[in-house]
Amino acid sequence: MPAPLRNDTFLRACLRQPTDYTPVWLMRQAGRYLPEYRTTRARAGSFMGLATDPALATEVTLQPLERYALDAAILFSDILTVPDAMGLGLSFAAGEGPRFAHPVRDEAAVARLAVPDLDRLRYVFDAVASIRRALDGRVPLIGFSGSPWTLACYMVEGAGSDDYRLVKTMLYARPDLMHRMLAINADAVAAYLNAQIDAGAQAVMLFDSWGGVLADDAFRTFSLAYTERVLQRLQRERDGVRIPHIVFTKGGGLWLEAIADTGPDVVGVDWTVDLGAARARIGGRVALQGNLDPAVLFAGPAQIAAEATRVVERFGAPLAADGACAGHIFNLGHGINQHTPPEHVSVLVDTVHEASRRVRLRAASGASRT
Amino acid sequence: MPAPLRNDTFLRACLRQPTDYTPVWLMRQAGRYLPEYRTTRARAGSFMGLATDPALATEVTLQPLERYALDAAILFSDILTVPDAMGLGLSFAAGEGPRFAHPVRDEAAVARLAVPDLDRLRYVFDAVASIRRALDGRVPLIGFSGSPWTLACYMVEGAGSDDYRLVKTMLYARPDLMHRMLAINADAVAAYLNAQIDAGAQAVMLFDSWGGVLADDAFRTFSLAYTERVLQRLQRERDGVRIPHIVFTKGGGLWLEAIADTGPDVVGVDWTVDLGAARARIGGRVALQGNLDPAVLFAGPAQIAAEATRVVERFGAPLAADGACAGHIFNLGHGINQHTPPEHVSVLVDTVHEASRRVRLRAASGASRT
Repeated sequence: MPAPLRNDTFLRACLRQPTDYTPVWLMRQAGRYLPEYRTTRARAGSFMGLATDPALATEVTLQPLERYALDAAILFSDILTVPDAMGLGLSFAAGEGPRFAHPVRDEAAVARLAVPDLDRLRYVFDAVASIRRALDGRVPLIGFSGSPWTLACYMVEGAGSDDYRLVKTMLYARPDLMHRMLAINADAVAAYLNAQIDAGAQAVMLFDSWGGVLADDAFRTFSLAYTERVLQRLQRERDGVRIPHIVFTKGGGLWLEAIADTGPDVVGVDWTVDLGAARARIGGRVALQGNLDPAVLFAGPAQIAAEATRVVERFGAPLAADGACAGHIFNLGHGINQHTPPEHVSVLVDTVHEASRRVRLRAASGASRT
Repeated sequence: MPAPLRNDTFLRACLRQPTDYTPVWLMRQAGRYLPEYRTTRARAGSFMGLATDPALATEVTLQPLERYALDAAILFSDILTVPDAMGLGLSFAAGEGPRFAHPVRDEAAVARLAVPDLDRLRYVFDAVASIRRALDGRVPLIGFSGSPWTLACYMVEGAGSDDYRLVKTMLYARPDLMHRMLAINADAVAAYLNAQIDAGAQAVMLFDSWGGVLADDAFRTFSLAYTERVLQRLQRERDGVRIPHIVFTKGGGLWLEAIADTGPDVVGVDWTVDLGAARARIGGRVALQGNLDPAVLFAGPAQIAAEATRVVERFGAPLAADGACAGHIFNLGHGINQHTPPEHVSVLVDTVHEASRRVRLRAASGASRT
């Protein structure tokens, strides 16, 4: 029997329920900018060694919570575990991004693809269960996966890319192959996230990290349609408790309405979007998550506080005078940079909590006057 | 006395005047995907050797016009000639992007910056004059520069970047230094483009290649404000002929209205934007240039024709039933990729010309029926 949740601010904001302050967590909050992470990572020997060891994954997941007043934990893992389980051979060379030993580049390779046996991802579900036990109700735990399109990018390119030449060539020249790959990815991701929910994830997030590289029409056809396919297959609640679904498309600011139409509870936005404008566009239907430029954390404490306050104020008080409630989860617009000074993150988290309480008080006193 | 212009379709579209078909040119149309370019480039020894030799720059500028029915030529040069003239030492290592020997990373380096003596860019103006003579009125010649912000990115980073850490650190930690650099860049770019116009450029384009990496507020403050400063200083006509001004912000789709507000004649858009939606947003005030994903050119001729036709049809017939005329210049949403098969470009150019004549005929016959 899991411990009762002592801080449900994040979950409430996801569901657009009133909160005392704006909850905050940071993409990649357990990561290389933390010296204690680097120590554990060195002990594990490799990134995948760390990600596949539930005890070590639990350790690093909790590290940022020891330092900062974060309102959610996120499973320590990688967005590419699903294609790895499909047999593509994921590895991380030192100082480089992910790489697949067996990229999917022709009809035969696409034909061999199948939804993987979830037993090959047992280490992830074990980590989720272990982290839930370690959290002991402190904050909720977020599970995640790469989106079908983002997985396909890496599966075809075999690594990161500047121009996405190989995957876009397949998309435009052989859309039939691309659709087959994406359908398999979507079904695999849905099963994977549902298993994370079964293991104890209290919210799940789809990272469409590379959706923003697509042309408008291609985005709708090859990214968004498969995001929707995943969302339609996800469990909406577990043991009577709602499980918020979050979709984040990096560079997706032009498509907020279309993303909201796929039916998530929360839409993540990067820093190119004005959060007030985003709220006006879709804030009546979904909560918003974001959106500070991670580069702000390279500046000094005063500038960090000013920029974080600006983001909080751009969203404004979630509760409107008419009683309708919007939702904001503060985050960066992308993963925290490895060169971030750890002490700067304290300034950010504390500023968000304080500034958002002030915004609520100001709105409440303004509302009481009218 | 320059030869009279025999094909003014591009200039007319820039000024939202009726045209028989949609003009087309391609960013980086004189470049590595062409074997004849690679031959001339080898003869020059280095990229800067090629760019600084007016005869060779003329030769490569005209090469794509020999192959394709393009409606404009663009000066062969680089977006970073201005900071090179400031003394930063531009070079291009084989297979890599640009690099500055003396990046601008501290207060002292910013203090040393000044608008360069335009004599140091004489080779560019000589190339413009030489190309105009060689074109002999065939199509108009476009001059260009990097935008103040995009120049600043390279000046601080010293090269391309994944995360823009150094330049964004300066922006957030020392906005005073960044503003000083941008003001100098803007004045230098304006003088540089005006000198290109004096030498014979018939339109000028600002490439804000890295505007899209900025947060919404930072984009307006550090990119857009200085784009506007350049535009305000540019010559609007030469010898009684209008000189269209084009602004292209890669990743700027969210900010189209704000970009149009800076006063250009043409706004370039990348492939993430739906061209019909962009026309509805700003097509009554400016012409639009774009926006095929260059990756489409990796597919086969049938797919290239289908995707190019889709772009032409998304914009629609420029002349509305009420007599108002919009403007569309077909282009890619980014520079043509070096791996593009040259024969695919013929399919693209011919398709744009044919499809856009069809769209006009269809609209005219529809209008005559009503």
